[in-house]
Amino acid sequence: MISTPEEIRLALPSKGRLTEPALALLADAGLPVYKPNPRQYKATIPNLPGLAVIFQRPGDIVVSVRDGSVDFGLTGWDVVAERRGANGEILALHPALGFGNCSLQVIVPETWEPVNRVSDLLGVRQQLARPLRVATKFPNLTAQFLGERGLQDSELISSEGTLEIAPDIGYADLIIDLVSTGTTLRDNRLKQLEDGQILTSQACLVANHASLKSKPEVLGIARQLLEFIVAHLRATENVSIFANIRGDTPESIARRMFTQRLIGGLQGPTLSPVITRQGEKWYAAHLIVRKDQLVEAIAELRQIGGSGVVVTPVKFIFEEEPEEYRQMLARLEAP
Amino acid sequence: MISTPEEIRLALPSKGRLTEPALALLADAGLPVYKPNPRQYKATIPNLPGLAVIFQRPGDIVVSVRDGSVDFGLTGWDVVAERRGANGEILALHPALGFGNCSLQVIVPETWEPVNRVSDLLGVRQQLARPLRVATKFPNLTAQFLGERGLQDSELISSEGTLEIAPDIGYADLIIDLVSTGTTLRDNRLKQLEDGQILTSQACLVANHASLKSKPEVLGIARQLLEFIVAHLRATENVSIFANIRGDTPESIARRMFTQRLIGGLQGPTLSPVITRQGEKWYAAHLIVRKDQLVEAIAELRQIGGSGVVVTPVKFIFEEEPEEYRQMLARLEAP
Amino acid sequence: MISTPEEIRLALPSKGRLTEPALALLADAGLPVYKPNPRQYKATIPNLPGLAVIFQRPGDIVVSVRDGSVDFGLTGWDVVAERRGANGEILALHPALGFGNCSLQVIVPETWEPVNRVSDLLGVRQQLARPLRVATKFPNLTAQFLGERGLQDSELISSEGTLEIAPDIGYADLIIDLVSTGTTLRDNRLKQLEDGQILTSQACLVANHASLKSKPEVLGIARQLLEFIVAHLRATENVSIFANIRGDTPESIARRMFTQRLIGGLQGPTLSPVITRQGEKWYAAHLIVRKDQLVEAIAELRQIGGSGVVVTPVKFIFEEEPEEYRQMLARLEAP
Amino acid sequence: MISTPEEIRLALPSKGRLTEPALALLADAGLPVYKPNPRQYKATIPNLPGLAVIFQRPGDIVVSVRDGSVDFGLTGWDVVAERRGANGEILALHPALGFGNCSLQVIVPETWEPVNRVSDLLGVRQQLARPLRVATKFPNLTAQFLGERGLQDSELISSEGTLEIAPDIGYADLIIDLVSTGTTLRDNRLKQLEDGQILTSQACLVANHASLKSKPEVLGIARQLLEFIVAHLRATENVSIFANIRGDTPESIARRMFTQRLIGGLQGPTLSPVITRQGEKWYAAHLIVRKDQLVEAIAELRQIGGSGVVVTPVKFIFEEEPEEYRQMLARLEAP
Amino acid sequence: MISTPEEIRLALPSKGRLTEPALALLADAGLPVYKPNPRQYKATIPNLPGLAVIFQRPGDIVVSVRDGSVDFGLTGWDVVAERRGANGEILALHPALGFGNCSLQVIVPETWEPVNRVSDLLGVRQQLARPLRVATKFPNLTAQFLGERGLQDSELISSEGTLEIAPDIGYADLIIDLVSTGTTLRDNRLKQLEDGQILTSQACLVANHASLKSKPEVLGIARQLLEFIVAHLRATENVSIFANIRGDTPESIARRMFTQRLIGGLQGPTLSPVITRQGEKWYAAHLIVRKDQLVEAIAELRQIGGSGVVVTPVKFIFEEEPEEYRQMLARLEAP
Amino acid sequence: MISTPEEIRLALPSKGRLTEPALALLADAGLPVYKPNPRQYKATIPNLPGLAVIFQRPGDIVVSVRDGSVDFGLTGWDVVAERRGANGEILALHPALGFGNCSLQVIVPETWEPVNRVSDLLGVRQQLARPLRVATKFPNLTAQFLGERGLQDSELISSEGTLEIAPDIGYADLIIDLVSTGTTLRDNRLKQLEDGQILTSQACLVANHASLKSKPEVLGIARQLLEFIVAHLRATENVSIFANIRGDTPESIARRMFTQRLIGGLQGPTLSPVITRQGEKWYAAHLIVRKDQLVEAIAELRQIGGSGVVVTPVKFIFEEEPEEYRQMLARLEAP
Repeated sequence: MISTPEEIRLALPSKGRLTEPALALLADAGLPVYKPNPRQYKATIPNLPGLAVIFQRPGDIVVSVRDGSVDFGLTGWDVVAERRGANGEILALHPALGFGNCSLQVIVPETWEPVNRVSDLLGVRQQLARPLRVATKFPNLTAQFLGERGLQDSELISSEGTLEIAPDIGYADLIIDLVSTGTTLRDNRLKQLEDGQILTSQACLVANHASLKSKPEVLGIARQLLEFIVAHLRATENVSIFANIRGDTPESIARRMFTQRLIGGLQGPTLSPVITRQGEKWYAAHLIVRKDQLVEAIAELRQIGGSGVVVTPVKFIFEEEPEEYRQMLARLEAP
Repeated sequence: MISTPEEIRLALPSKGRLTEPALALLADAGLPVYKPNPRQYKATIPNLPGLAVIFQRPGDIVVSVRDGSVDFGLTGWDVVAERRGANGEILALHPALGFGNCSLQVIVPETWEPVNRVSDLLGVRQQLARPLRVATKFPNLTAQFLGERGLQDSELISSEGTLEIAPDIGYADLIIDLVSTGTTLRDNRLKQLEDGQILTSQACLVANHASLKSKPEVLGIARQLLEFIVAHLRATENVSIFANIRGDTPESIARRMFTQRLIGGLQGPTLSPVITRQGEKWYAAHLIVRKDQLVEAIAELRQIGGSGVVVTPVKFIFEEEPEEYRQMLARLEAP
Repeated sequence: MISTPEEIRLALPSKGRLTEPALALLADAGLPVYKPNPRQYKATIPNLPGLAVIFQRPGDIVVSVRDGSVDFGLTGWDVVAERRGANGEILALHPALGFGNCSLQVIVPETWEPVNRVSDLLGVRQQLARPLRVATKFPNLTAQFLGERGLQDSELISSEGTLEIAPDIGYADLIIDLVSTGTTLRDNRLKQLEDGQILTSQACLVANHASLKSKPEVLGIARQLLEFIVAHLRATENVSIFANIRGDTPESIARRMFTQRLIGGLQGPTLSPVITRQGEKWYAAHLIVRKDQLVEAIAELRQIGGSGVVVTPVKFIFEEEPEEYRQMLARLEAP
Repeated sequence: MISTPEEIRLALPSKGRLTEPALALLADAGLPVYKPNPRQYKATIPNLPGLAVIFQRPGDIVVSVRDGSVDFGLTGWDVVAERRGANGEILALHPALGFGNCSLQVIVPETWEPVNRVSDLLGVRQQLARPLRVATKFPNLTAQFLGERGLQDSELISSEGTLEIAPDIGYADLIIDLVSTGTTLRDNRLKQLEDGQILTSQACLVANHASLKSKPEVLGIARQLLEFIVAHLRATENVSIFANIRGDTPESIARRMFTQRLIGGLQGPTLSPVITRQGEKWYAAHLIVRKDQLVEAIAELRQIGGSGVVVTPVKFIFEEEPEEYRQMLARLEAP
Repeated sequence: MISTPEEIRLALPSKGRLTEPALALLADAGLPVYKPNPRQYKATIPNLPGLAVIFQRPGDIVVSVRDGSVDFGLTGWDVVAERRGANGEILALHPALGFGNCSLQVIVPETWEPVNRVSDLLGVRQQLARPLRVATKFPNLTAQFLGERGLQDSELISSEGTLEIAPDIGYADLIIDLVSTGTTLRDNRLKQLEDGQILTSQACLVANHASLKSKPEVLGIARQLLEFIVAHLRATENVSIFANIRGDTPESIARRMFTQRLIGGLQGPTLSPVITRQGEKWYAAHLIVRKDQLVEAIAELRQIGGSGVVVTPVKFIFEEEPEEYRQMLARLEAP
Repeated sequence: MISTPEEIRLALPSKGRLTEPALALLADAGLPVYKPNPRQYKATIPNLPGLAVIFQRPGDIVVSVRDGSVDFGLTGWDVVAERRGANGEILALHPALGFGNCSLQVIVPETWEPVNRVSDLLGVRQQLARPLRVATKFPNLTAQFLGERGLQDSELISSEGTLEIAPDIGYADLIIDLVSTGTTLRDNRLKQLEDGQILTSQACLVANHASLKSKPEVLGIARQLLEFIVAHLRATENVSIFANIRGDTPESIARRMFTQRLIGGLQGPTLSPVITRQGEKWYAAHLIVRKDQLVEAIAELRQIGGSGVVVTPVKFIFEEEPEEYRQMLARLEAP
């Protein structure tokens, strides 16, 4: 009557700040998600035919991957750390997908002027003559952190709503919450402690260990996800450049390029002849340059006589088999 | 540094299906909430000057009232039952405000055709040869109910998101969740069990026991809240009627009215003379009638010669001191 | 396998300018519609327990009432006239519910300067040397009207979309469409013809003739709908007035009131004694006045020494059995 | 070619915090505005047939009334004070319509800790060794105020956008701006000066002096507007009460009522006999009570044996000709 | 007075699921539509200066192209099939633009359990002892299909609204409607018949036959539309790849590539020398690969010693004159 | 207490038609703006670390750049011309960013049929026997223009709201306002005068003269902004083409290309050998072509035997140091 699912499943965040960037990452990595109906919580990735996509809340994704009801999950590292449990079933395929950055912080009212470090909280606790009341949505991480800092008697209070208002309405003395830009803290007249960072987090890709180990088709999906995501992330950091450079031979041009820091490259440029009307000798150089070094690379090219520098975006850069995939295999084979 | 709040506080639901009706109830009861800024979580009731209003999630309201950080809370009975704790600090001032009706139900997939009663779940458990996995947001009520029905080994799974999709995606075998209209169940191909109702709920007004007992101004606010809410709820069920009835004397008209079921009333109508052009004898009768008996009352009036029946709405009906207020006083004085 | 519905049904407009006022009318008439779920097309009227409400497009409502799949329909007179057919099954219970006013008009481009009357279209037809191309959503009414005006050879063109753009894009030469405020015409540089009004329309209540005749419970619902709607519409046009007037006896005050146009009334005012501190003789007059004569009535009251004029709204005014109900019964009994 | 408008015109605020309450005030005063098309800036008040309504920005309304292109304007007192000019053409019909409350304040950054009074600004000016740069949308009121406080050399800077960010981005040193709740100030880390209030404002009704004086039909509209608005505003502060009181004669009941503070009234209650089944002597008292004294009035009624207190809202209370109208006539006749 | 339009016109869907993808297709094909005003139904394509764009409902587009009031239409094949008429004036330029996929299906209630094929409807018809009542928006296609299946006596019922509710409210027995994902059917507890597919459809580009034949400038626009759309659609299926491959000569590298399935290509790769620091022999290969074979192509490149595989998107791939254009010319010249 | 800002600042338009395209321009130019919080008016450009972004209204941006409180501003040329003042502090870095096109026009009612040129306004003024009343948001440009045309006695009227309604409501006789598409004019029944264009405008980049001259880091930012914006704008007008062309030698192919108008180019194509299976001689040509000449260039390529033409977009084209940068330097060094 109750059947075990046979399909391979990827859980994506159903709501909140991770949803849009997660869908965009997959689309940009050549794996767009097709959701036939906005009210539905199920979807497919037409380019990964064996895989079903479901949408869940970020924390529920961790539970699902831990229990094996889904095979892959794209969620925040914060909830993975909080809810991954001790059974070792959650394996991080890619720990840093480049979005959803935030950190878990100890946060107190601005009016607590002398309280700026975690150790100052010991004084507050003494002054109050009762355990601190700490509202948080991360009880496991919070209990461990407060325990290590001598505040193991604190009372943890869960909340369904916005934590930032808790100190003001007396729901708690302080809060331990995620911070991304700090604007919300400032708006609510709260402040972080200088050494109160418990964790930094960003979006990550996790998988169920047993699934990967026992089902070759799950391993195959893991490889494709990693290949495309890694090649896409690498591509977003680089551009392709064509530049015309005057010179008698490819070798003489290459020598000039090798004198420069960025356009020399590790290996060397592709150089193809330009056939000119008047017969001057020009060559077209093709090279890959990091985006954040583009201005400098242009300057180097101008330096050695380059002009007509055409920059085009790249969609993927595939190097050898991704490091992340090799690491995963190693961990699967670990005893 | 950290001060105890001195203001008297009422917590209202900040979000979801209770928010709008709660604000409407107070406005209709002559106690409109003034929220200076939509982004703020604080407000006032200008007609209850000593009272501060804060907005919290329904479940957090219970925690706040239990801990005494707020004095009054308007929230759902479901979360009161789940989270009220054992310390007796939560006192129900008005248990049934007439909105937010729902019930907590055991819910299984439609495809479980032979499973229709709670006892049928024992068979499912046996067939699965493992404990049932039950997703719920009400772990206390769920654990108690399942324990009473022989399912105490069930695994309770919490969820941040929509429970209705849990069975379909394998997150849980069945769910225990609130149901109001049943439409969402039907849309997700789920069904309730015949005897699976754990609790019925509607919006209620609760207060902190110690606050009421120790602070006279809190007791004063409690009385005003109850007076106006009770008088308003009574008013919504009645209308005021003026009808012209021909007759020689008020007494003869009243006798005719006393022969009827509804317009005779407990006490009797107010009758005032109508001065007519031609000098016929008419009297204007004024009476209060229940809305759901209006059609019948009109028929009775026509029966005894009434016409020109003018119906007007009423805003409040104040009888003696409200029953709910007397009950509260009694409980406060209980040892 | 396919069953005939047993429930009694009222169809309301599912979308467009009639929906909100229709729901408001029923709510104001004491018959609020309860729609458990915004995505659903079914609802109930808790105060009319035997009746199911469904939501359909205005034109489909006419088809449903004509075929008897629903018993009552609230829709626009325009679509009733267009689609009521010849079988006499549609019976108008209330022809003028006071909203949704519009008219069906012949509309031509502003640039047709010499064309201002329907007869001018004959010249256009001659000049074009081909039949006029007329876009409309009312082919039956249009064909009949154009036939009576000598334009029976016109080509009628249906359209799924906005008719107002048809002349400009050459989809048709002219259009026959509903007009309410004329703003859309002006925006699209179109104009009505002086004598081109084919029909005026407003929201109306219709019923299936056979249903009313054969099912007593349908007749009972019809009566209740009419009683409350008629009493509500009458109430919206009147207010209740209490005024204090000085005078020795009720009769002397009434005599003064009878000299005035509005406050004399047909029958006469209710007059009750005011007991004053100083013992002057005052009476409180209670009367019903039409809203659009309120200013004048206040002036008349001031004229005869009235003051402290308190105006209250009324919810229903029930006179004798509604005229509309009697007419319906008559038509049902017609051979 | 360019004609003077013949129609009488009322300008309403087209956008912002005054629009909705202005439309609500007129609707509640029995003068609902009918706007055939949401995109249009013209409307009518069906109950005031001679009057055209146009929608303009609050400041433009003042210009229009001053120049006579519109006859009446409903706008904020702030812009009237700023832009009314010196020609005396703007006459305030009703200065306080009860909404749109705000005040014009001198506002400085929170970080200017020692600056708390206007006189402290002289020190800032000295320290800066240059005139203060003051951003404002009220240059006339600002120049006058700063001149009176010894800051006449300040540089006034206009701005199209939100003034609150001006100090932070260096656009100005301080700002003079409208403040309603103070939340926006707090969010932008700004503060008011203790004695920096330049003006308090709320919505008001103004008219063109020459129009009123020369056109009787404009005077007629002015009277109707004032009658209904004043009667409505008075009604919103009161409720109508019916209560049953046991007593032998109306006079004995009235005597008991006269002993109370609120229910004695100035004049006295209306008392009508209640005809009871058992023949006890009861009377129904009808009186008008202020809303904010309702609780106390109920207590007084219970005190003298009243019960079944039915409270109904009132729509208008017309007393004598409104004071505001008499004042207007007086000013029109002033030399 | 009424002029024939001289401009060349393309009609695009004004509303619904085709609008956004149609605009996106044209923009991606280098022909972005410029709509100066969101409220307007007219637009231009700046890169096709002689062409005016109008927005119409999908079905009206077919009528317009058929009648020649517009020259080109982008709409769904479903409405073309339903409304193209018999005059041969509609010519399909491109029958499959790759979006708007759906099918026209016979749909019955889920509760009709034994009914699963069209032939089963004959039994239903017999059981009902009356013609089937079929609601549809495609009367022509429906009549033809039902006629071929022995159900020619069915009563076709048109509807302005959502067909899916028709069986439940008794408006019709079954429906014939477009289905894309099936979610709406499931939500409404309906099902398709196994052999009930009447038509499959997607977005297509159609033109007026006479326009193309008689006006050379229309033919010119047709060619440009087809060239860019075809080159764009081909580009969306491919990517451009640059890979560095070690080898002594271009020919030896090419030989290795020709041994592989995908990277051998029909013709062969472009190979350009890479000038390296250390003097090893490397060449850069440039080739075009189908997107859905990208993973495999990368594997093949790695296989023959390729690395640094850079993938870039392509915007257009122009081959010879498009096949679709040649077919159109052939049909125009057909007798 | 009040500090001068040390950060370098760029002001972007906070609201209206320039905001989205301005953010898009910077993003497309490789300088995406990162706004941590939608409610904030501050942002950063991660790729230009020393630069702070603030959001202001377009007109306020001019004031800020003029006063030096911000260093760079991206705003409309219309407000620069109106508010730049006479102190020469505003320097135009890039006068034409390619969006926000509009013009400042003299606009009169359509009903002024004989008024079609500015000189016709003299007659209107004479006929009115009073100065023209002109509503505008550009008083400086308006006063100068009207002064040059003999209308120096016109009364200029400012307005907070939409100017287009001013003539109709009598707020002004005519208006001088920005026009982009003319649709709004037509909707309001207004028309431009034939020779009434005062100014054409588009978005531009301006800077504070003193900042550029005195701060090298501001000059550095200016160069980077110009480099990337100019290279991006050039890229948007071109595409990169790869085409396979059969031929014995690169030179023979190049000769054929030089015979063509577009694909010959100024300098010449890059030609690389294609290694074919069958050994035919093919070369791949790489060239840059203007987008608006793409169709023609494809035709030329087909003409000389090209096929498999692959078009890819380009992100930047860097030529020599931008002309705009050199001009800026020249103006800075001017005495």
